[in-house]
Amino acid sequence: MVRKIKLLIEYDGTNYQGWQVQAKGQTIQGVIEDRLAKILGEPVHLIGSGRTDAGTHAFGQVAHFTTHRSFDPTTIQRALNSLLPEDILILKAEEVGEAFHARKGVRSKVYEYRILNRPLRSVFYRPYVWHIPYPLDWEEMRKATQKLVGRHDFSSFRSTGSPVTSALREVFRAEWKQGKDGLMRFQIEANGFLKQMVRAIVGTLVEVGKGKLDAEGFQRILDSRDRRRAGPTAPAHGLFLIEVKY
Amino acid sequence: MVRKIKLLIEYDGTNYQGWQVQAKGQTIQGVIEDRLAKILGEPVHLIGSGRTDAGTHAFGQVAHFTTHRSFDPTTIQRALNSLLPEDILILKAEEVGEAFHARKGVRSKVYEYRILNRPLRSVFYRPYVWHIPYPLDWEEMRKATQKLVGRHDFSSFRSTGSPVTSALREVFRAEWKQGKDGLMRFQIEANGFLKQMVRAIVGTLVEVGKGKLDAEGFQRILDSRDRRRAGPTAPAHGLFLIEVKY
Repeated sequence: MVRKIKLLIEYDGTNYQGWQVQAKGQTIQGVIEDRLAKILGEPVHLIGSGRTDAGTHAFGQVAHFTTHRSFDPTTIQRALNSLLPEDILILKAEEVGEAFHARKGVRSKVYEYRILNRPLRSVFYRPYVWHIPYPLDWEEMRKATQKLVGRHDFSSFRSTGSPVTSALREVFRAEWKQGKDGLMRFQIEANGFLKQMVRAIVGTLVEVGKGKLDAEGFQRILDSRDRRRAGPTAPAHGLFLIEVKY
Repeated sequence: MVRKIKLLIEYDGTNYQGWQVQAKGQTIQGVIEDRLAKILGEPVHLIGSGRTDAGTHAFGQVAHFTTHRSFDPTTIQRALNSLLPEDILILKAEEVGEAFHARKGVRSKVYEYRILNRPLRSVFYRPYVWHIPYPLDWEEMRKATQKLVGRHDFSSFRSTGSPVTSALREVFRAEWKQGKDGLMRFQIEANGFLKQMVRAIVGTLVEVGKGKLDAEGFQRILDSRDRRRAGPTAPAHGLFLIEVKY
């Protein structure tokens, strides 16, 4: 009997070439598939909810695989966690019905981007934030952020060289949360994300913060559907995949 | 004119052989002295508030040095932060009076020890906690912790092979703070600490948590002044020097 197992995965992306198996370099998917094959004694193909960029982290990536073995999910979780490196952790493993699909079944995803906005860098935040030492206009950035909510063509905020597919996505929520010591957390929830979309949005919002654009200018960039008009792509190491909803 | 500069220092101790310059391996003191000498163009001797063990971190180590140069402290701070590696940061630099001494002037120090007490390890807490996957008796540990407060001979909680000096210290405060997701933070403030004292105390408190000892047994170990009766030394990477008071 073939069984389908769903995994909830936390990882520190610092030392990986992203989620998806690549020709060169270590990936999260590749490392988990390797350990699963050792445990199950059969080749395993892991299907994630989507890719994450090289250097990007996750609190709650979701993936599934099918197996002919009868190990219960908790046993698989324990065995995986004992074999995986310290920067990858299986938070949960459960058996799901045949209809579940980690990528096709996604209703929405939540990403978080962290900026440390203060003159001093930080030893402990360092691998997980984009440090911006000069002041930013957070009021104008918050105004621009509100322009993202709703159904839009996000062509302006996708990586160049993306395949020609629809760039229409619906953003349910986009907001900045103020933490202590200058830590600012951008949370965005949408029914789907284009390649490097969150990083392009954050890079452009920072241009607003610097005063190079105002919220109306940000709106015009969104409306233009032209990637060349948007700001630079924010560094990957400030980005976290927080949650995938089904 | 000779001027005295006081530094407030944050560091991630993971990649260092502790604070103090050693015959072998990189130390925090050594790296800062090296960069200071480059900036000031003269050899610099940095005097810290005290040593921290290899692998131990700091949010607020204090040190001072004297110099013949007339750079203002903010310039020194900026120059240092641009030359120091990412895991060492000068939070503050200020000129102090001749009477100030980073070690001799200490009134009290605050240390924090972090335990992650839950079945699952954590990708993001990993370099900064002692992960204990089995349940601990936190009520009994808290009772034992109260025995530490006051003036005691801490010979039971010093590293073996320490020089024969007085082990009398006064603990002003010792408590466990409960964080989220199983993170427990032990804070202890005292007028001074013996070598590996916090780690030996935490290691013994965990023995209480496991049920191998009760709070009265912990009291008897403290009273015995015999290191061989105490528990194992907790790992260095869970320990932070939080604050030095003058």
